[in-house]
Amino acid sequence: MLPSRKTAKAAAAAAPQQGSTVTQPRLLLSSGKLNAAAAAAWSEAASSTDDGGPRKEGGDTFLHGLRPAATLAQVFGLLPVKQPSDETASFRWASVRVAYSVLVILASAVQSVFSLMRMLEQGVNFHTSVNVVFFTTSTITSLLFLRMATSWGSTFSMWSTLERFVAAVNGHPARLVFRMKVMTVVALLLAAVEHSLSIAATLAHALPCYDRGGLPLLMEGYFMRKYRKTFTIVSYSPWRALLIFILQIITTFNWNFSDLFVVLVSMGLAAHFRQLNVALDEAKGKLRHEVYWRSRRESYNALAVLTRAINDYVGPVVLASYASNLYFTCLQLLIVSKRKAQHSHLHNFYFFFSLVFLIVRTVVISLLAADVYLESQRPRPVLFSVPSPSFCREVQRFLMQVNTDSVALTGCDFFSVTRSFMLTVAGTIVTYIVILVQFDTNATGDDSGPQQPNRTLVCTCSDLQIYNC
Amino acid sequence: MLPSRKTAKAAAAAAPQQGSTVTQPRLLLSSGKLNAAAAAAWSEAASSTDDGGPRKEGGDTFLHGLRPAATLAQVFGLLPVKQPSDETASFRWASVRVAYSVLVILASAVQSVFSLMRMLEQGVNFHTSVNVVFFTTSTITSLLFLRMATSWGSTFSMWSTLERFVAAVNGHPARLVFRMKVMTVVALLLAAVEHSLSIAATLAHALPCYDRGGLPLLMEGYFMRKYRKTFTIVSYSPWRALLIFILQIITTFNWNFSDLFVVLVSMGLAAHFRQLNVALDEAKGKLRHEVYWRSRRESYNALAVLTRAINDYVGPVVLASYASNLYFTCLQLLIVSKRKAQHSHLHNFYFFFSLVFLIVRTVVISLLAADVYLESQRPRPVLFSVPSPSFCREVQRFLMQVNTDSVALTGCDFFSVTRSFMLTVAGTIVTYIVILVQFDTNATGDDSGPQQPNRTLVCTCSDLQIYNC
Amino acid sequence: MLPSRKTAKAAAAAAPQQGSTVTQPRLLLSSGKLNAAAAAAWSEAASSTDDGGPRKEGGDTFLHGLRPAATLAQVFGLLPVKQPSDETASFRWASVRVAYSVLVILASAVQSVFSLMRMLEQGVNFHTSVNVVFFTTSTITSLLFLRMATSWGSTFSMWSTLERFVAAVNGHPARLVFRMKVMTVVALLLAAVEHSLSIAATLAHALPCYDRGGLPLLMEGYFMRKYRKTFTIVSYSPWRALLIFILQIITTFNWNFSDLFVVLVSMGLAAHFRQLNVALDEAKGKLRHEVYWRSRRESYNALAVLTRAINDYVGPVVLASYASNLYFTCLQLLIVSKRKAQHSHLHNFYFFFSLVFLIVRTVVISLLAADVYLESQRPRPVLFSVPSPSFCREVQRFLMQVNTDSVALTGCDFFSVTRSFMLTVAGTIVTYIVILVQFDTNATGDDSGPQQPNRTLVCTCSDLQIYNC
Amino acid sequence: MLPSRKTAKAAAAAAPQQGSTVTQPRLLLSSGKLNAAAAAAWSEAASSTDDGGPRKEGGDTFLHGLRPAATLAQVFGLLPVKQPSDETASFRWASVRVAYSVLVILASAVQSVFSLMRMLEQGVNFHTSVNVVFFTTSTITSLLFLRMATSWGSTFSMWSTLERFVAAVNGHPARLVFRMKVMTVVALLLAAVEHSLSIAATLAHALPCYDRGGLPLLMEGYFMRKYRKTFTIVSYSPWRALLIFILQIITTFNWNFSDLFVVLVSMGLAAHFRQLNVALDEAKGKLRHEVYWRSRRESYNALAVLTRAINDYVGPVVLASYASNLYFTCLQLLIVSKRKAQHSHLHNFYFFFSLVFLIVRTVVISLLAADVYLESQRPRPVLFSVPSPSFCREVQRFLMQVNTDSVALTGCDFFSVTRSFMLTVAGTIVTYIVILVQFDTNATGDDSGPQQPNRTLVCTCSDLQIYNC
Repeated sequence: MLPSRKTAKAAAAAAPQQGSTVTQPRLLLSSGKLNAAAAAAWSEAASSTDDGGPRKEGGDTFLHGLRPAATLAQVFGLLPVKQPSDETASFRWASVRVAYSVLVILASAVQSVFSLMRMLEQGVNFHTSVNVVFFTTSTITSLLFLRMATSWGSTFSMWSTLERFVAAVNGHPARLVFRMKVMTVVALLLAAVEHSLSIAATLAHALPCYDRGGLPLLMEGYFMRKYRKTFTIVSYSPWRALLIFILQIITTFNWNFSDLFVVLVSMGLAAHFRQLNVALDEAKGKLRHEVYWRSRRESYNALAVLTRAINDYVGPVVLASYASNLYFTCLQLLIVSKRKAQHSHLHNFYFFFSLVFLIVRTVVISLLAADVYLESQRPRPVLFSVPSPSFCREVQRFLMQVNTDSVALTGCDFFSVTRSFMLTVAGTIVTYIVILVQFDTNATGDDSGPQQPNRTLVCTCSDLQIYNC
Repeated sequence: MLPSRKTAKAAAAAAPQQGSTVTQPRLLLSSGKLNAAAAAAWSEAASSTDDGGPRKEGGDTFLHGLRPAATLAQVFGLLPVKQPSDETASFRWASVRVAYSVLVILASAVQSVFSLMRMLEQGVNFHTSVNVVFFTTSTITSLLFLRMATSWGSTFSMWSTLERFVAAVNGHPARLVFRMKVMTVVALLLAAVEHSLSIAATLAHALPCYDRGGLPLLMEGYFMRKYRKTFTIVSYSPWRALLIFILQIITTFNWNFSDLFVVLVSMGLAAHFRQLNVALDEAKGKLRHEVYWRSRRESYNALAVLTRAINDYVGPVVLASYASNLYFTCLQLLIVSKRKAQHSHLHNFYFFFSLVFLIVRTVVISLLAADVYLESQRPRPVLFSVPSPSFCREVQRFLMQVNTDSVALTGCDFFSVTRSFMLTVAGTIVTYIVILVQFDTNATGDDSGPQQPNRTLVCTCSDLQIYNC
Repeated sequence: MLPSRKTAKAAAAAAPQQGSTVTQPRLLLSSGKLNAAAAAAWSEAASSTDDGGPRKEGGDTFLHGLRPAATLAQVFGLLPVKQPSDETASFRWASVRVAYSVLVILASAVQSVFSLMRMLEQGVNFHTSVNVVFFTTSTITSLLFLRMATSWGSTFSMWSTLERFVAAVNGHPARLVFRMKVMTVVALLLAAVEHSLSIAATLAHALPCYDRGGLPLLMEGYFMRKYRKTFTIVSYSPWRALLIFILQIITTFNWNFSDLFVVLVSMGLAAHFRQLNVALDEAKGKLRHEVYWRSRRESYNALAVLTRAINDYVGPVVLASYASNLYFTCLQLLIVSKRKAQHSHLHNFYFFFSLVFLIVRTVVISLLAADVYLESQRPRPVLFSVPSPSFCREVQRFLMQVNTDSVALTGCDFFSVTRSFMLTVAGTIVTYIVILVQFDTNATGDDSGPQQPNRTLVCTCSDLQIYNC
Repeated sequence: MLPSRKTAKAAAAAAPQQGSTVTQPRLLLSSGKLNAAAAAAWSEAASSTDDGGPRKEGGDTFLHGLRPAATLAQVFGLLPVKQPSDETASFRWASVRVAYSVLVILASAVQSVFSLMRMLEQGVNFHTSVNVVFFTTSTITSLLFLRMATSWGSTFSMWSTLERFVAAVNGHPARLVFRMKVMTVVALLLAAVEHSLSIAATLAHALPCYDRGGLPLLMEGYFMRKYRKTFTIVSYSPWRALLIFILQIITTFNWNFSDLFVVLVSMGLAAHFRQLNVALDEAKGKLRHEVYWRSRRESYNALAVLTRAINDYVGPVVLASYASNLYFTCLQLLIVSKRKAQHSHLHNFYFFFSLVFLIVRTVVISLLAADVYLESQRPRPVLFSVPSPSFCREVQRFLMQVNTDSVALTGCDFFSVTRSFMLTVAGTIVTYIVILVQFDTNATGDDSGPQQPNRTLVCTCSDLQIYNC
């Protein structure tokens, strides 16, 4: 028997009697949902492994990178938690933040119903369903984030605890915080540009109203075009329009933020796996003690536990995000491929930009989320290359876990986000486009649904004969 | 070597000589189809493990929860067994129950043939095939349940035996019986509402007959509309109509009951796996003796054996249920998306309700059946988190089984019911709908097949020129 | 350490020195393609395990069951080997049998080319391609069987050797020979009925020729209809027609025989796995010695080796068979769903019978071939239920092989024939039918391709204006 | 305990202290990207295992077989490296080769943009997109090869090192170099024929120009037809035409070379796996020492490491190649199935040849790349047949790796190239063809996109009224 294995076994046999700091972390891995006490104990274990030094407050942790996005989400009413520091967050049902959030959800829901009514008036097809899908997605996303807010604190304190444990072994991923911040800024800037273009394109349609009545009528025309149903039910007033406009900004933010959130979480998970892989790559083909492999396996398992917990947390958001991206990508492709030449340059540019934005966003979220799976598979070649003398039970268990544990973000277990899933989604989009393009003959590429048969200019409600408002 | 393993090995080595109650259960696991003697022996083993206390008769067992549905099925001739208590059921070919059941099957088969003839007269398409598919499905389901009745007793006595063995380790699932009863009541109530609406909608079509001849002609008109082929072959009489109506109620019950049965069985299996997972979650990351893992692994294996046996038993029902749900969902979606505005509010409401009912039913059955697979996978993270000192051969075998055994309900091995299968089915429905909606131009959304070209009112057979009746 | 394991190890350690009959079989498993010498040695080992008793010549072996089909195939020139007994077969390139076979292949190839030319004249579509596909498939199948004939003897002597080895452990499958003979008779009888109906249906089209010129002209009309291209290139004569007719019988036999051959081989493989599973089921949950599990594992491995070798042998036939069945099923479904009412009862019956025959044939071949996979998976639950004390390395290896070895018939590794593959094929057929039925508007359900625009009666070549013959 | 295992363990235990040549190779397997020092050390280890004999310079190594294709690629500016011998290659950004390569990339990019502009002018459909896709693919491929050139030297020195290590155990694959050279010649010859036919077919269209103005006008007509956009932007001159023609030759070479490169790499990998399998087949069922299995496992692992590294290297090329082959196959099938009879024999022959060439090329690349996966799976049956006494930890590790490691070429992890993937691709092509053929009504089978509405002869730019050139 090799000496190294004897020592490891002795250590292992001794461990339970001592309750030493080495075994502590393992004992604490007992549940996906760590309660406060467990988290505290774990935290101690982690900081003791950290050599007891003062923990640099949010220096290069994931939560520090998530902070800007989370703060913005609070501004837009999406995340009604109080977050005094990076790692603490408290949720109270009876708070202004929750009231704000619920108000936004209600308003979105009302808009969904109005859009649905308008769609039923106009006939159900791909083009009239845009607003229905947009506002419904937004309402569902807001509800999901409200639910997530209730366990935001506990989830991310678990993240933070596990992160410290893993970082104690592998170190913090370099530049993760920086990359997360850049991603946040770029994603939201592009979303702002896309939405500004959308507003400009709709304003261009309503431009003749400016000639008729100046800026006020232009604005009324804009809202009549975009929220016709709303303003045939309640009469138009600038204040109402402003509120509607704020709601529009908020829902657009929601639509973009849910994708951004999945992206940031994926970046965090993948970065930690990558960190572990870098460490393992150095050990490739070298002789290492069983203790080495045990600590690496425990790191990996901690990350797997973290991934599973986070997946349970963001799973519904992933599902909603994929469904909406699939729908909007098909829609924009259909609009672009059916476009006539009569549109202005502004419209052409808007449609093109919007399509590219959508595809890039879907590809980026997919690639980054698939990275979690990809990185979780990378230890395999290292483990197959372990030299025979240093192959031990820990390596075998590690290999078994890499081979059989499914470490990936999933859409509520309906699908795992991997690259081969991306190919399936791409194939589905192409097939639908081929079928739809072949048969859809009355598409006009109008962003506010199909044009009305009588192309009269509508600036105020009274321009509409069909409604009595 | 750890003391714990030595003890376990000693116990294991001693076992075969002693034939103790501990090894008894394992010896009895010898076949999926337990004979009476084996079941009895197993039962003793289970109750001895149960500390010899008096077994609470059907207190919170699965069979107690299944009882209401089973009784109802007997009333509707679907399950011709005599069931004096929860756990005993006897089947005799020469019994009134079987005769009743066979009569229903024959009547359904005759209706299938009549519907087929009418479809061939009208031309084969999606709309004319409704009744053919409905009655054929009903006939096949009845036949399947008749076959299942022959081994109902032995199958569920095995269930009950295994359930006691597992419950002795993990306890009974909380509130399972209550949830099963609620599910039975809700499912059948909704089915009753759906069918009443369907009758009302057809009556509304025949309403003009009321003006012509009062209630009797209204009823004759109803049956002429719904069973035209039947009443052109045999002449109409109120008694015949009543029998046909009873048959209609029974087949509708069958159509709904087969889904309900799969749901209840899935709930039972998933609940026991969940119970095991709760117990395992408590042990996550903690040091446990090999004996602990062995009893947990044997529980898991008993559930896997149970699932496989039950899957062999209900597999054909699952297959038939999925096929019919896929067909009817496509049909209703097609009808709804092609509907014209001329329909009455009653019809609109009926179509909407029927579609939602169908989709919800399909989603619920899929989610609950997929839960069996999902719950059977949950022990994996616990097993990966077993601390190194307490990792033993039993954990390894347990892990191997969780990783490679396919514990799920399947449609006769053609497919496993998992969440990713649900996604595939959903994708298939969307694709067919896209193709069918694009091309189907003569759909009218009439629940009794396509309307006759000459829209004359048909209240009696003599209104029909084309038949000589 | 358990005594049982010690003994096993001692035996194992002793084995290489002794070269005993126990290790002999294992040593001979060295290659999928056993050479004559190895086969002979193996045969000895098998018969020595057989207690040296006289081998019952072909009593209940697979080859005895294959004999009738193989003999018939020799009559139709498909299998040019000399087969003095069940287990011996010799192939010589320079023999009358091979010459006969090559002649048939050449004639089929010529007919393929003629059909191709006629298709190009008429325009490529689903209906004109029938004869092209039929004759091409037949030619390819004949070529495949010619190639298989060259190694028929060695392949089936390997089968026979492995079968004896496995049967020495598990016994011969009951009634396999009987079931294989029944299958042969039923399959070929149904094929004969189907082809007679096809001839009758075509004759019915040419019936008016009988009025014009009696039986000779009726026959000429038949051949003009079915082989127009041929008889516009070479002039018609009764002798030529007879030769063509014989070719037609032979190619039809080929088309059916390749499926029958796959079915028989699948039955043989599945029966042996089933035999093993019955033996294992008896051991389920019982304590067994490592030696027991070793012999069972070696049986299983021998069957896996056999399956792999046979799969390499029949793989191309499986691929060709699936491709042709997929094509003809789509075609017949398309014809039936598009049929007009003007056809005679004979035609209606023929099309219906032909479609049902085709579907039943495809389903039967799929189910039986999928049985090989299904049966190869069945040992798994038994192995998971092995009681802990008797769990040993042999059980672990056995389990590993059942879990990871892919024991199934495949179409040249493009697909494995399993039940889930059947579902995929069924889904593909439904999708193509939905697409094709929606758009195919000029189908007429004529079995000899689309009707000519001018529906003149063609009884002799001179009736055709467009050809100069 | 068996003596054999004791020895092996002793050797293993001794290894780390000695740093002997036996363990050297394992230590060097530390990273996919070997640095120069490691490669050198590895190289020594390999040559020492090689009995220190003089290494035959490129005798029968993969790189020797790759040489002709690599040299040709350098001529066409695709691979800007300096390659003094088979195994050395140096890349410098500041070199004439790189400048040449960049020039080609820029020119292709410009042509892509021109084609895109022309497509937008004519309307986006399958036919107008040909040139866009062709030139874009070519540009991307060139960029990929430029990137690959930067690490060409290090990648193939790693290949060469690992090849020597593996060959020391299993020997060099017989005739690999010869087969690679034959493949290079045949592939490029067929590509040359295909392209000549394409030129001839386009010239045939422009033939009337010859009558108008002799050879110069014929050539101008050719270029006006093929590069209309280019010559409406810059005026036509023979020198420019010559440059364009050279670019056309180069891009066509690129299009073919990327496939050839993947094929050659696949042949190299598969040949080495095959070599290992031949060696293993000899050991099938025989008793072998643990040391034997260890060296075989290490060979296998070295090949797995090599495959993974090469896959990272050529992955993007595989992805681009599959995407373009899928597109062009659909296009050519669509053109051929929609062809009218008015085309000349030359055109008919060209289209037929081009389609067959494309399909054969796609099938060959797929089959050969799938061979890597297939061959990597073949050790499995041998490992399952290892006799019990010689089953050891090394066999278990080997089996584990064969079962769970995914050794295959992939398209950037989006898909693995296996035979079942080929079936999926084939199914996709058939589905798209069925959908496209059914609806595409304005296809004309013109290789330069759809013909212009006014079928006037265009020989010079001035023939075009619509452009001001």
